[in-house]
Amino acid sequence: MSERITIVGAGLVGSLLGTVLAKRGYSVRIFERRPDMRTSTGYAGRSINLAMSDRGLRALETAGLADDIRAIAIPMHGRMMHDKQGVQTYQPYGKEGQFINSVSRGDLNKVLMTAAERHGVEIIFNARCTDINVESASATFELPTGEVILSEADVLFGADGAFSAVRSNLQVRDRFNYSQHYIDHGYKELHIPADDAGGFRLEKNVLHIWPRRSFMMIGLPNPDGSFTLTLFFAHNGSPSFEELTTREAVMEFFNEQFPNAVPMMPTLLDDFFTNPESSLVTVRCSPWVFNGKVALIGDAAHAIVPFYGQGMNCGFEDCNVLIECLEHHHGNWDQTLETYARLRKPAGDAIADLALENFIEMRDKVADARFLWRKKIEAWIHEQYPAKLIPLYTMVTFSAHIPYNEALRIGREQDVLMEEIMSIPSVINDWTSDEARQAIRDIMESRADIAIASGSPS
Amino acid sequence: MSERITIVGAGLVGSLLGTVLAKRGYSVRIFERRPDMRTSTGYAGRSINLAMSDRGLRALETAGLADDIRAIAIPMHGRMMHDKQGVQTYQPYGKEGQFINSVSRGDLNKVLMTAAERHGVEIIFNARCTDINVESASATFELPTGEVILSEADVLFGADGAFSAVRSNLQVRDRFNYSQHYIDHGYKELHIPADDAGGFRLEKNVLHIWPRRSFMMIGLPNPDGSFTLTLFFAHNGSPSFEELTTREAVMEFFNEQFPNAVPMMPTLLDDFFTNPESSLVTVRCSPWVFNGKVALIGDAAHAIVPFYGQGMNCGFEDCNVLIECLEHHHGNWDQTLETYARLRKPAGDAIADLALENFIEMRDKVADARFLWRKKIEAWIHEQYPAKLIPLYTMVTFSAHIPYNEALRIGREQDVLMEEIMSIPSVINDWTSDEARQAIRDIMESRADIAIASGSPS
Repeated sequence: MSERITIVGAGLVGSLLGTVLAKRGYSVRIFERRPDMRTSTGYAGRSINLAMSDRGLRALETAGLADDIRAIAIPMHGRMMHDKQGVQTYQPYGKEGQFINSVSRGDLNKVLMTAAERHGVEIIFNARCTDINVESASATFELPTGEVILSEADVLFGADGAFSAVRSNLQVRDRFNYSQHYIDHGYKELHIPADDAGGFRLEKNVLHIWPRRSFMMIGLPNPDGSFTLTLFFAHNGSPSFEELTTREAVMEFFNEQFPNAVPMMPTLLDDFFTNPESSLVTVRCSPWVFNGKVALIGDAAHAIVPFYGQGMNCGFEDCNVLIECLEHHHGNWDQTLETYARLRKPAGDAIADLALENFIEMRDKVADARFLWRKKIEAWIHEQYPAKLIPLYTMVTFSAHIPYNEALRIGREQDVLMEEIMSIPSVINDWTSDEARQAIRDIMESRADIAIASGSPS
Repeated sequence: MSERITIVGAGLVGSLLGTVLAKRGYSVRIFERRPDMRTSTGYAGRSINLAMSDRGLRALETAGLADDIRAIAIPMHGRMMHDKQGVQTYQPYGKEGQFINSVSRGDLNKVLMTAAERHGVEIIFNARCTDINVESASATFELPTGEVILSEADVLFGADGAFSAVRSNLQVRDRFNYSQHYIDHGYKELHIPADDAGGFRLEKNVLHIWPRRSFMMIGLPNPDGSFTLTLFFAHNGSPSFEELTTREAVMEFFNEQFPNAVPMMPTLLDDFFTNPESSLVTVRCSPWVFNGKVALIGDAAHAIVPFYGQGMNCGFEDCNVLIECLEHHHGNWDQTLETYARLRKPAGDAIADLALENFIEMRDKVADARFLWRKKIEAWIHEQYPAKLIPLYTMVTFSAHIPYNEALRIGREQDVLMEEIMSIPSVINDWTSDEARQAIRDIMESRADIAIASGSPS
């Protein structure tokens, strides 16, 4: 008999995890609290678009699903900043050919659920986890009918998201470290529909940002020609959601802050007062693994804010590393889970920090000339010395082999280096001059190549 | 009709809070999960001795209870460090006449419960809080009989400790920030009985410490001539509790580390294997106040590690500040609770940090000659310039008017100053020389007096 795995949560990570484990011969059951989003109309999950990048794609390749996802994704090659006058400034994300992918969370989840079922995974919907047993890796679920299911298994995964029921059960155990921290900003989704011909009203293959220092709006393209906009804005204070209580106040605010977007947003006021004001939380905990047979994965282990576009990518990478550990330890679950937690906990902590910091970059720094100038110099140095300097964004987004914690560490060192370079008089004067380039080369030649610790078990 | 107050928890803080509110004319009911410790034998609370200092005593004075408590307390004027050879080194806590007080948590709690009842507070025991309603300030309790009590009130306090049921109910609300963090060390209580004549086997009026760098044992006197010892020791690793699994291993460890204590501990082995290995947690959360009518207080708002002896003192100070706020706002609860939280949240965060740091001081630094030497210089400067420098320990322990957060801030500034002074060549050479004293005076004369922000509402 094959080993039995119970997964709590059929979201993105739970569905992908189910698929990769089923492909390796495990008998997998997933219990999902919500109804089946493929057949039900009342899908209540977060609808925010996701930015799929290399880490997520690599994990989907392991599952044999990368091409299915590419088919529903729209490449975004850089950021397009919109100032208050409607002037647009473009900043590429990386080198030619490097891009991230706009994909609908709902569509992605449906593809992953169907893939899991195709590989023999049983998904039980409308099943609320009410209890778990760390000693036996069993879990109890309640159905809307009142029926109670006891799922016994060899290994139990909590893949049930930021507000994980599995984690809540673990939280009351002795010596479980836990934190949930909300930032002062929330978000609200808004909408730019396709034009009358079904085309995009803004540049299609970019991520649009309206950076306004203390807040921002972003826009991601959808396959139907529309854009999903998200306003990230303080809950309280001035300016904040708290102040925008009337249609007049909302119109005035948008006309002042986003005048070039307003004419493309015919349903702005209805959207604003219909869509919820959601909050943004960072969750950290440890340990992630109990008794060699219960483990947390994805947002249940490390919920992060969305500003680096890495929440789903990190969760998918969790699955990939888990499978690597399983291979490395020849199917020994105790060792597998221990190595998984040892490798991934620092990675989860690092991307949580990076995501918080990137909010400042997106809403504030990208509107700053010096910041954009530094990014250009950094890109030039990376081109000349690819083994000595890799921009942080590139390490996080376009690498699938540099662990997040290594990216963070190396990024901090490169910060110091870049500030040194930016203070060279000839660079300040004209960084494209021969003198400036020679000064930069002198510094770079004396640096060693980057040494990167592995995020894999082997 | 007077306003009704519900307090969850009849521990130290809940009982004192009930007393001071009843004295001001409020109708107070306290619900306690445990049986009445004054009549039941199975008291399961923590029995660790407490160090009562000025903040706690000041709050007890407000309640008219300070003299009752002094009667059951033993003054401790300083630390007595024991090295492995049994050599004892004494370090006074402050100036002549400044001392902390060893008091039994259980005895103190009994006095406080009785005082609350004397002032008309009703205490309902064996009542487990199962739900609270933030909108109506009501709470639901379940008795062992299965009976359910709905307590309706104008204001509801959660004074139910580090594992607060009230706080658990708040934790699932949107935008409630929460963290629980366990340190790597746990503790176990041990015992030195009185000698045959009923006398103390060690110096009575001090806090004994056996500092051993990565761990320590401490001893506090009891009125019956005994000492309560507490071993603070890593849960895992080497050395740790994990390694001490046999009677032989325990004896070997104690003979090596605490040879002068072992002959005074006839029940060492039985105590070691009977008493639990407990864990140490820091809990932080915010907000502390909801809807102007529900508030957290004491450990429920800010559980801290015990190394500064301030957990109970901080909780008592919470009560005192709350009463000050109530007076300042003429009984308006909405404003009272808002001001209380604004003043006390930074104080709670500060003492949590200080308590963690003081573990390093107690287990490690007090065994260090340079540290003791610096303490002496600091005490001398304080004597000469009492308005310009106050040792951090003195601000925390012997002041009832410097908020913890101000003590922390000022302490950090004084750290820098003291390191500057400690690096003066003449001070290194002989800090009692005329030259060194003049160098210290030159620095101190140029410094402004300490400016302290108030921790009171007025």
